[in-house]
Amino acid sequence: MALKRSEIRIVQARAERMLGEAGIVLTAEERAGIEVAGFGLDDLEEQGLELITYINTDRYCAKDLILFPRQTCPEHLHPPVGGDPGKMETFRCRTGQVFLYLDSLPDGPENSAEDIQAVIPERSRHYYTVFREVVLNPGEQYTIAPGTKHWFQAGPQGAVVSEFSSTSRDEFDIFTDPNIVRMPLIDEDE
Amino acid sequence: MALKRSEIRIVQARAERMLGEAGIVLTAEERAGIEVAGFGLDDLEEQGLELITYINTDRYCAKDLILFPRQTCPEHLHPPVGGDPGKMETFRCRTGQVFLYLDSLPDGPENSAEDIQAVIPERSRHYYTVFREVVLNPGEQYTIAPGTKHWFQAGPQGAVVSEFSSTSRDEFDIFTDPNIVRMPLIDEDE
Ligand SMILES: [Zn+2]
Ligand SMILES: [Zn+2]
Repeated sequence: MALKRSEIRIVQARAERMLGEAGIVLTAEERAGIEVAGFGLDDLEEQGLELITYINTDRYCAKDLILFPRQTCPEHLHPPVGGDPGKMETFRCRTGQVFLYLDSLPDGPENSAEDIQAVIPERSRHYYTVFREVVLNPGEQYTIAPGTKHWFQAGPQGAVVSEFSSTSRDEFDIFTDPNIVRMPLIDEDE
Repeated sequence: MALKRSEIRIVQARAERMLGEAGIVLTAEERAGIEVAGFGLDDLEEQGLELITYINTDRYCAKDLILFPRQTCPEHLHPPVGGDPGKMETFRCRTGQVFLYLDSLPDGPENSAEDIQAVIPERSRHYYTVFREVVLNPGEQYTIAPGTKHWFQAGPQGAVVSEFSSTSRDEFDIFTDPNIVRMPLIDEDE
């Protein structure tokens, strides 16, 4: 399902407010370009992500991600693309709290949906399959190896998260939920 | 000349204060690890740089740089290293103001030391040779191609600058001033 342009503007303003509270300054052009990812799921507040890409070259990428309270970025992985072994990502929490979930470690305990602090989006419960939990508070970070399934959710206050990574090729991301459409569909209602 | 450990601690505390004013949170371990680069020049306030490296992998790197008022990072370039074409850097100003200097563009005007807003460090005047000026205010950024000579100075309020880049291999940086020693020399006076 497409997001309405009018809805996107409201969501952008809210994301911009959260960036401002984190002390992050954007140019006017960047503010207008805040990306709103609804993943085609028609419930942005529950499963969605707001992001601003500062730079994405063929060598590195840097973004800030904004998550509203309990908003979830759905489970996905970054596959190899051509000669690239797959995107490697470092998430650094700036404000709020983030719950990050990854595959269990080979020699570690098996983690299950019952053990975690995040609230799994009910309608898409079957498409959340990895539960090794990493909690990130402001100043804490975690680096995700290429090919690792992961998803994340903000705590009750929302979160601003810096993402440092190798090149982003979002259109190749593989989501566990086959209903997901990563690239934006926009209904120009204005 | 080596920096004294006691001096480094004072400089770290000052850098940490400026990061805090920019809304940037560090862990205790990161605070203790703020790098103080005096470049062996024995005048850190004039030519020096404080930095915190969040992540440096074989694919990408992210740092925050702290510059005290009018503090200057001396002219240098990032050469090819092995199969790497040389470090590519994006500087994004977070707080304060930064004056960045680069080689003149092939078809552009020739820029000279008289035209610029920065104050060239007097003692090292001969080692500043590129003067194409880029002024960065909060939210503004500039990406430097590999192999480009560059130097930068904070405005009168100092600056915090995020650096997104390909892999950092600081030990290979080529400085115009032959007196510069990039890697830290520390006098453990405590
Ligand atoms: Zn990811
Ligand atoms: Zn540089």
